Amino acid sequence: MHGGDIYTEGKLKGQELIDFSSNINPLGVPESFKKSLDEALKNVVNYPDIKYRMVRESLSRYEGINEDLFLLGNGAAEIIDLSISTLKSILIPAPSFAEYHLSAEKWGVHIEYFHMKEKKNEDGTYSMYIDYEKLLQELDGVEGVILANPNNPDGSVLDKESVKKILQHCQKTGKKVIIDEAFIHFTLLEDQSLVKWVNEFSCLLVIKALTKYYGMPGIRFGYGITSSKEMRDEIEKKQNPWNINSFAVEAVKSVLFDDDYNKKSIEWLENTREPFVKRLMGFSVFNKVYRTLGNYVLCELNGITSKEFYDACLERGFLIRNADNYRGLSEYNIRLAIKDKDRNEKLFDMLNNL
Amino acid sequence: MHGGDIYTEGKLKGQELIDFSSNINPLGVPESFKKSLDEALKNVVNYPDIKYRMVRESLSRYEGINEDLFLLGNGAAEIIDLSISTLKSILIPAPSFAEYHLSAEKWGVHIEYFHMKEKKNEDGTYSMYIDYEKLLQELDGVEGVILANPNNPDGSVLDKESVKKILQHCQKTGKKVIIDEAFIHFTLLEDQSLVKWVNEFSCLLVIKALTKYYGMPGIRFGYGITSSKEMRDEIEKKQNPWNINSFAVEAVKSVLFDDDYNKKSIEWLENTREPFVKRLMGFSVFNKVYRTLGNYVLCELNGITSKEFYDACLERGFLIRNADNYRGLSEYNIRLAIKDKDRNEKLFDMLNNL
Repeated sequence: MHGGDIYTEGKLKGQELIDFSSNINPLGVPESFKKSLDEALKNVVNYPDIKYRMVRESLSRYEGINEDLFLLGNGAAEIIDLSISTLKSILIPAPSFAEYHLSAEKWGVHIEYFHMKEKKNEDGTYSMYIDYEKLLQELDGVEGVILANPNNPDGSVLDKESVKKILQHCQKTGKKVIIDEAFIHFTLLEDQSLVKWVNEFSCLLVIKALTKYYGMPGIRFGYGITSSKEMRDEIEKKQNPWNINSFAVEAVKSVLFDDDYNKKSIEWLENTREPFVKRLMGFSVFNKVYRTLGNYVLCELNGITSKEFYDACLERGFLIRNADNYRGLSEYNIRLAIKDKDRNEKLFDMLNNL
Repeated sequence: MHGGDIYTEGKLKGQELIDFSSNINPLGVPESFKKSLDEALKNVVNYPDIKYRMVRESLSRYEGINEDLFLLGNGAAEIIDLSISTLKSILIPAPSFAEYHLSAEKWGVHIEYFHMKEKKNEDGTYSMYIDYEKLLQELDGVEGVILANPNNPDGSVLDKESVKKILQHCQKTGKKVIIDEAFIHFTLLEDQSLVKWVNEFSCLLVIKALTKYYGMPGIRFGYGITSSKEMRDEIEKKQNPWNINSFAVEAVKSVLFDDDYNKKSIEWLENTREPFVKRLMGFSVFNKVYRTLGNYVLCELNGITSKEFYDACLERGFLIRNADNYRGLSEYNIRLAIKDKDRNEKLFDMLNNL
């Protein structure tokens, strides 16, 4: 599951929980989308354009990529799922987003795992990273690989020069490289995305989402970009017509160009991410805190299991992500989303009194 | 395609067409849904409940069927597609909704067609009907069959007693029966749906949609009902998590219980369907007009092809459904949606001056 279950533990029991489990922009739904609701309501009485031409036009303008290169999904999950379905075997990082191996299992795709390495940084935080030499070797036995930029649950980003070598190798050997950039906006690094490389490398498929950064996972929209017509055709023929709802259509047209929302989000991240990590390092309940370029922080607990910690937080009205079911992590790992200052302070207060 | 393309011919060229091609309730979006928009907007910042418990509860209450028996789809199209994917071979009526054979082709399901029969009624209309004896024989070579109730594009409904025999046969022989009831509400026949039989026949899967009757195809929601846990599991394991968007969730909770909308829709149908068919019979451009229990009317043209007729209507600002690409129909078939009185009159005026 993406995050904790606010329904089972919260809403359906009539209590509102403070949700540190799901990695959603705490600024909420952009005003630009709210303003587009009338338009969405006007259009919901029609079938959407089956070719979604206005959506493609907006995405193309936003990414600076030819509109024919886009795959449109009912959430990024659909594109992740269908792109994995095109492979016979896949290399998946551990730890990484659980949907990768769930999709592979569903489509009968053989899975090989490679484990992220770990190092301690000078400031006392930890970082996960990929051994690209080893990754290159392990590619031998598979048809493709999926990598996340940044990776979930640890928040580390890809080293672009190393990935370029991987792409060159895969381009030559006919392997596919799927890059999940669902959280790329949160890095605040303008040049971190691999999107610009899709024209150069037809083996590359980059996947992005609207749902996390624009605070609207309920809208269900994500997209993929690849210059491989073969890959696009293979994925599109598995999709259903009208897979994108009218509200998502309006969202694409409005939020991508919402400079005000973007400015506020950058401000929020610049002001909260580093202080959040530093504050966590001050609590003795954490053994390790991982440096992140996402809007979430992986931690290792000290003397308490993640299940026990989860329950203790829940009792106090906080939902956190128990990360013990990630392959490559242990029963002491949890993940915390970074929220706005108010809620972050409430979390720290809770941790102080734990 | 479901209906004509209001985008290619209309919106993207800056002209509004009167759309008689898509079979959508002309009363538009229910007020009850508009009122639920604030709730949807509040919830769009969260991932939907991954188990969609409130949706299941609403559907269960509405259908009088245990909530575990429901399959939830991003449009009925998703459930149609995935249910067909569970078969190795399928019997499909001709004519019928094009998505049936498109899905079968996509999943590599072998297709056998059986042709609907036709008769002239006493009032001069025509009707298509199924030869159930022949259907029973043709089931021999396939794993399952899909039937629509009512059928699209002709609007004929299933004979329930005959279908019961088909179900008894399929229950014994391990074949599956998929019934597409996307347009069932429009029949105004309370006892026409096969939903109540799902408990008795585990070979039966009934599919319904919210999008047509409640005038909101852009919302993307449909559902299936079957007591076969095996069939549900097989379909659900192919679905992506969070396949239903937050706006569809609120729609289910509101529109199914919107008595006012339902009352107005019944009034509209009772007042327009029969007169619409009768009026069409008065135009010499039609050779045959088919009796319908849907919100659409199949016609056969007289001395003009459907392509020529389509173009002539388009020139006059009307979009109609050219039905010449339905298997079993000819280059003289078109389909007209039934709209509200005002628009119907405009259509008649246009036909008068054709």
